[in-house]
Amino acid sequence: MKKVAVILSGSGVFDGAEVNETVLTLLHLAKQGASYECFAPDIEQMHTINHLKGEESSDKRNVLEEAARITRGEVRPLSDLDSTEFDALILPGGFGVAKNLCDFAVKGADMTVNDEVLKVGRAFVDAKKPAGYMCIAPVLLPHIYGKGVKVTIGNDGEVASAINKMGGEHVNCGVRDIVVDDKHQLVTTPAYMLAENLLDAEEGISKLVEKVLYMAA
Amino acid sequence: MKKVAVILSGSGVFDGAEVNETVLTLLHLAKQGASYECFAPDIEQMHTINHLKGEESSDKRNVLEEAARITRGEVRPLSDLDSTEFDALILPGGFGVAKNLCDFAVKGADMTVNDEVLKVGRAFVDAKKPAGYMCIAPVLLPHIYGKGVKVTIGNDGEVASAINKMGGEHVNCGVRDIVVDDKHQLVTTPAYMLAENLLDAEEGISKLVEKVLYMAA
Repeated sequence: MKKVAVILSGSGVFDGAEVNETVLTLLHLAKQGASYECFAPDIEQMHTINHLKGEESSDKRNVLEEAARITRGEVRPLSDLDSTEFDALILPGGFGVAKNLCDFAVKGADMTVNDEVLKVGRAFVDAKKPAGYMCIAPVLLPHIYGKGVKVTIGNDGEVASAINKMGGEHVNCGVRDIVVDDKHQLVTTPAYMLAENLLDAEEGISKLVEKVLYMAA
Repeated sequence: MKKVAVILSGSGVFDGAEVNETVLTLLHLAKQGASYECFAPDIEQMHTINHLKGEESSDKRNVLEEAARITRGEVRPLSDLDSTEFDALILPGGFGVAKNLCDFAVKGADMTVNDEVLKVGRAFVDAKKPAGYMCIAPVLLPHIYGKGVKVTIGNDGEVASAINKMGGEHVNCGVRDIVVDDKHQLVTTPAYMLAENLLDAEEGISKLVEKVLYMAA
């Protein structure tokens, strides 16, 4: 059975991991016969957004503790993630990626990546193990894979430009499709960067999971 | 297109709506061609549980605002739910049902139901519109449907006894199956009262959604 590490960035699209993307990822890993473990950095969220009003609220939340809401408590600190125990890596999206796993939401193309995320991402690269990044998560990839990495976040011009400026090669992609960088064994899909409903998101995520598992030795 | 109202009780299995059950419910409504709107009471949660440690934390959270994390902001106050606009009602589970929609978690068979939940649930009964309740949510049903209502929460002896004591008729049921009370047009399934993984939960929830939509005029 192939074993996949999944990195989460909280719980809730506006300040954490996109909940639907996360559940759909885990569902399709299970459907396609893989096992998985979830991880998240044990750090404070950049901020908390009231998801009803779309406004910042004053309470402080921890990325790992909030990620545990999606996974029924089954999530470990990202510092525990040993890439040698896994065949592949998958990152769902949500603004938590751009706020908690890096600072893209604030700094755009001048962003830096959380040290643990960078270390883990590069460990999978160095071990030539495949990975899948969805939604906004591909903004991490120029830092993790280096120049020329081919990725998609859908068709948002501003984010695509930032990815290109950081050394990536953005490719426009429909919501139900994937972009594959064979050289880097890397799969990306737009998910809720473009998805208008759960069926849109499910089809792209299902294809991403399938391709990542196919690439996993 | 059949339109279903979904009532949520927060976001996170230990103090709110079970996240996986909620996403799987919405996914299968979409897959089976129905539209839906989500609702939650605009009230403070009974308490907040740190889902990583399983311990109570001191912060206060609002049921409606937390439910918005699962639905990307698309959730309305339960007081807005007009049963005449919908063909059916579905309640995912999670301890939020037993803590925020009623006080079963504290009072067991002596529980009372939140006024808005009781009013809305009974409106669907009175209009002879079908409903589906999953996981722990069937503890609400003796109060909503009255004596003799046939339901399942799986096979937990203590919860089943409490349901029977309140006037319901509990029927043991496997995790991937449903119990149908034809007289009341009511469908129940154990979901995460028994589910050991997403595939267990998905099969029962898929069947519940299918049966509820079939019953909807």
